[in-house]
Amino acid sequence: MSDGTGRRGLFLSFEGIDGSGKSTQARMLAEALRAEGRDVVLTREPGGSPGAEEIRALVLQGDPDRWSAATEILLFTAARRDHLERTIRPALDRGAVVICDRFADSTRMYQGLSRGDLRRTVDDLHALMIGIEPDLTLLIDMDPEVGLSRAKGRQGIEERFEDFGAGLQARMRTGFLDLAREFPARFRVIDGARPEGTVAADVLTAARTALSEGETA
Amino acid sequence: MSDGTGRRGLFLSFEGIDGSGKSTQARMLAEALRAEGRDVVLTREPGGSPGAEEIRALVLQGDPDRWSAATEILLFTAARRDHLERTIRPALDRGAVVICDRFADSTRMYQGLSRGDLRRTVDDLHALMIGIEPDLTLLIDMDPEVGLSRAKGRQGIEERFEDFGAGLQARMRTGFLDLAREFPARFRVIDGARPEGTVAADVLTAARTALSEGETA
Repeated sequence: MSDGTGRRGLFLSFEGIDGSGKSTQARMLAEALRAEGRDVVLTREPGGSPGAEEIRALVLQGDPDRWSAATEILLFTAARRDHLERTIRPALDRGAVVICDRFADSTRMYQGLSRGDLRRTVDDLHALMIGIEPDLTLLIDMDPEVGLSRAKGRQGIEERFEDFGAGLQARMRTGFLDLAREFPARFRVIDGARPEGTVAADVLTAARTALSEGETA
Repeated sequence: MSDGTGRRGLFLSFEGIDGSGKSTQARMLAEALRAEGRDVVLTREPGGSPGAEEIRALVLQGDPDRWSAATEILLFTAARRDHLERTIRPALDRGAVVICDRFADSTRMYQGLSRGDLRRTVDDLHALMIGIEPDLTLLIDMDPEVGLSRAKGRQGIEERFEDFGAGLQARMRTGFLDLAREFPARFRVIDGARPEGTVAADVLTAARTALSEGETA
């Protein structure tokens, strides 16, 4: 895919509530596309480059109130800028498929949820310092009760992001579905409550469609 | 001084090339105003609050090329937002005099010097996330040859900011003087090549004028 800035690859993001299986689906898609011989970069946010991982650690460690919402948005934007420059942009420039587990939509959803007035700040900072949006965003949608029981079953839960109750998860699900309606051209909502292989097949079909659109463009 | 946002104190910043004596002058002014019984908060950038100091360390430690100019501006803006929220704004709200050794003008000068195209980015981020400017900015102006010999004579020079040659210092001096012309209402240029006590007297006179203007406003 070319957007006139030398970008030739395809940029895919996964979004979804905790326990929705988005990380598993991102990994499975990466494996499927690599098996077809494609150059695939699987990455994640917050983080995804050495500098961004350091900023991630600075934000997520310690007292949850140590950063205001506004400062946190600035730090995540700094991490995203580093991730974009060091990982995403070089991969797209060489024609790779970039699969990112969470991207700016997670920031939009979280900030819109807790501080609606900061959604505008997130968007203004994104327009100023990031600019790029995924070609395709796969929202793995799931009932939060199902997602929560899956998340609790896993090891090493990231406290700040994933130690939330079902009520908050339900609001997050609604937040993501709202974003899918706001950006219908790039969002694809996939029912994540079905068996993993069925979900993966839908994900792969959506990714192949985006790839073939990019290759014929 | 009141600006309709509950701000009652006075916000003073010091700017100048390395070795200009601005940090000494900031400290001497704080001592003089405290001796008059005033509530004074002496602070510095980058840093000035626990969170901002952590961000400062992240930016300044390690390989100088680890952050791009754009990411560095975002990190400094995050640090400044934290400094503003945790240190500067609370002090101004209670009516204190805030004396800040470097503020946004240093960022404007450094970025304008190395990457002129990023000066606009600095200003856009400032407008979006910081907003406030000092009531009075004291530029301690000095011939860079004099400033450099003073800086080299000190212990514990901050490498990233202060290990520069005389040519770069001369460009920095010009950059600060350009800012003084750009913002004439709040800048006061003070000849820093004179004896410390003479400079301090001029600084105190300028600060007292700003304080009395604030108190009669």
